[in-house]
Amino acid sequence: MIQINENYKKLKASYLFSDIAKRIGKFSEENPSAQIIKLGIGDVTRALPRTCIEAFHKAVDEMSADNSFHGYGPEQGYSFLREKIAEMDFKSRGTGITADEIFVSDGSKCDTGNFQELFAQDLKIGVPDPVYPVYVDTNVMAGRTGEWKDGRYQGLYYLDSIEENNFVPDLPSEKLDLIYLCFPNNPTGSVATKTQLKAWVDYALKNKALILFDAAYVAFIRDNSIPQSIYEIEGADKVAIEFRSFSKTAGFTGTRCAYTVVPKNCQVYSSNGNIESLHSMWNRRHCTKFNGVSYPVQRAAEAVYSAQGQVEVKELTDYYLKNAKYILEKMQSFGFKCTGGDNSPYIWINGQRDSWEFFDMLLSKAQVVCTPGSGFGKCGEGYIRISAFNSYEKVVEAMERIAKAI
Amino acid sequence: MIQINENYKKLKASYLFSDIAKRIGKFSEENPSAQIIKLGIGDVTRALPRTCIEAFHKAVDEMSADNSFHGYGPEQGYSFLREKIAEMDFKSRGTGITADEIFVSDGSKCDTGNFQELFAQDLKIGVPDPVYPVYVDTNVMAGRTGEWKDGRYQGLYYLDSIEENNFVPDLPSEKLDLIYLCFPNNPTGSVATKTQLKAWVDYALKNKALILFDAAYVAFIRDNSIPQSIYEIEGADKVAIEFRSFSKTAGFTGTRCAYTVVPKNCQVYSSNGNIESLHSMWNRRHCTKFNGVSYPVQRAAEAVYSAQGQVEVKELTDYYLKNAKYILEKMQSFGFKCTGGDNSPYIWINGQRDSWEFFDMLLSKAQVVCTPGSGFGKCGEGYIRISAFNSYEKVVEAMERIAKAI
Repeated sequence: MIQINENYKKLKASYLFSDIAKRIGKFSEENPSAQIIKLGIGDVTRALPRTCIEAFHKAVDEMSADNSFHGYGPEQGYSFLREKIAEMDFKSRGTGITADEIFVSDGSKCDTGNFQELFAQDLKIGVPDPVYPVYVDTNVMAGRTGEWKDGRYQGLYYLDSIEENNFVPDLPSEKLDLIYLCFPNNPTGSVATKTQLKAWVDYALKNKALILFDAAYVAFIRDNSIPQSIYEIEGADKVAIEFRSFSKTAGFTGTRCAYTVVPKNCQVYSSNGNIESLHSMWNRRHCTKFNGVSYPVQRAAEAVYSAQGQVEVKELTDYYLKNAKYILEKMQSFGFKCTGGDNSPYIWINGQRDSWEFFDMLLSKAQVVCTPGSGFGKCGEGYIRISAFNSYEKVVEAMERIAKAI
Repeated sequence: MIQINENYKKLKASYLFSDIAKRIGKFSEENPSAQIIKLGIGDVTRALPRTCIEAFHKAVDEMSADNSFHGYGPEQGYSFLREKIAEMDFKSRGTGITADEIFVSDGSKCDTGNFQELFAQDLKIGVPDPVYPVYVDTNVMAGRTGEWKDGRYQGLYYLDSIEENNFVPDLPSEKLDLIYLCFPNNPTGSVATKTQLKAWVDYALKNKALILFDAAYVAFIRDNSIPQSIYEIEGADKVAIEFRSFSKTAGFTGTRCAYTVVPKNCQVYSSNGNIESLHSMWNRRHCTKFNGVSYPVQRAAEAVYSAQGQVEVKELTDYYLKNAKYILEKMQSFGFKCTGGDNSPYIWINGQRDSWEFFDMLLSKAQVVCTPGSGFGKCGEGYIRISAFNSYEKVVEAMERIAKAI
């Protein structure tokens, strides 16, 4: 008899985005003429940079002739892309990351979801709250948690990200083995200073823990004192891996390209305490279960690193940051406590009321869609997330409507 | 302390293709003027169909303007592609598979590797021998096997594919829970008749087992009496899922698009014997750990189903089949017992000697590269695989050289 992995039954059905869709549907039906502005989902809205489009077309043309056609590429990604990443994203920041430590993939969602496979079952795992649900759900599926109870999975250690700690979690009082961190944060938009990240790296070094550092929103950092990579912290290459994506950097959410950095120095342990190579393990996993990213997509991603590409992605992220700044200033002027919106496309707003109540009010009175913070975890209750991914004109109109609604 | 998944240590390092590369390297060094012809790896060599290229370009253009840009798509794939697949690959063959049972992905390697996650740990698993290593290695990583011993993993049930059964494994004498089958087969090139597949489906129905049916090479079937889909067998929708890929069908090995069929009828069980929905489980897995296939790639795949696309992919696979037929006839005329080469791009050749000895002889005397069958499992010893993925001219020359060499 073919028996299922019963851990799937522990998964709390994720109703967040379907609930949002239902409420929008109901509202639209009752108000057919309403012009709804969506500032909910974290998806980009603007075209791919011109330079990426050109490289994309050129690579598709290569696929049209036998003598320039590309079949299977290296699972880890082509050198042309890995070399540029190492040079421009890491060497330029004074870190020692090299091209052979970069694993190109089709998405950070996949990589953050799959990475836990490399580890033992009985780990103490720390996840932020509020949290990007993939970190949690993939560990539930793998059987590393207990049941869902009072809004949390038993057996996980939740790292509260709250006003009191500026949405950068405090070091845990107990010894954790695996820690998920995300900065600039989704959903709060908070960033971690060098001192704060150093504390986490030192904690990991001391406890032989591993940090899974999600830097998918790094392209929005404008304050140069904020670390862009965790490897800017000394010793991090021994205790951290880093996830990066072209999704938000260059508008690749529908194009699909990302990468994960696994330093060769990174130390993990077998049960007898021997040091093992995480790099070898991820390489084996990647080559066994993945067949590389589409060649034309890798060429499009490479174009991000050209001189013109750098100008264009800066322009692209600047556009969203202008939106974010506008939203932040307006919401603050309305009297709300906010974080993010600066070095981040997300604004995390303390609504001083139930998250869904605030959501419903904005929808019905301003026809603006946000995301209720409670959908990201217990610590998100009372908050909403507003995203800067829309046109500036729509953002301005949304703020005008909210001004009248509240 | 961050402890590893110790099952990774059980993995036998896969030296097959690196061993091949080393031997080629050594030979080339000693014979710098040798013109080596590679008929080893299973990778296509010819350009993407013209229709796919046009659709690909058009979709890249859509990504270049805000009003036609595509961000995140549905994780399961766009309807435009899923509908065509259901219509052209399944309804046309008299099966009841519908669009919402199709999950588009970036590769069958990923899907065949990931699917085991949905199941319990203590399953009786059947894998063919010789075998596509992904089926085995992913179960080793997941901890479903014992150690490697005498060329096999303990705890797996190997389904011998040998001359005596025409390389279609016999039904097992014991009750298996999960069975991997692949037809047209990689590496043997064998196909299963309707009667043979029906026996497997009936076995699965009787034993409440699940068949993971890999049909990556279906586009090479020309004999219309051979089932293209396992769903042509009555009852298969209750006990089988099917993997398909555009890699070999339309030359997408470097472009990346595939799909998996999980019928809503497909029954799996929880430990108390309750029926559970495999479709819901895979949907949950897919949405949690995957973010959809690149939009332009899905448009390129869709083009395969246009009238012109169908002509072009037929032309493409015909080309390789002509190579395969030529190789088969020649190798038979040299006195070798062969299978495949007909309804398949692979020819599986009984060399009447050690696989590596045959490999070395072909390399040194004919400068032709094949794949030693022993790399695919114990039952592959004594065989080599020759692949039809090369130009016709090279194939002809390779056979001429082999004629002189033996």
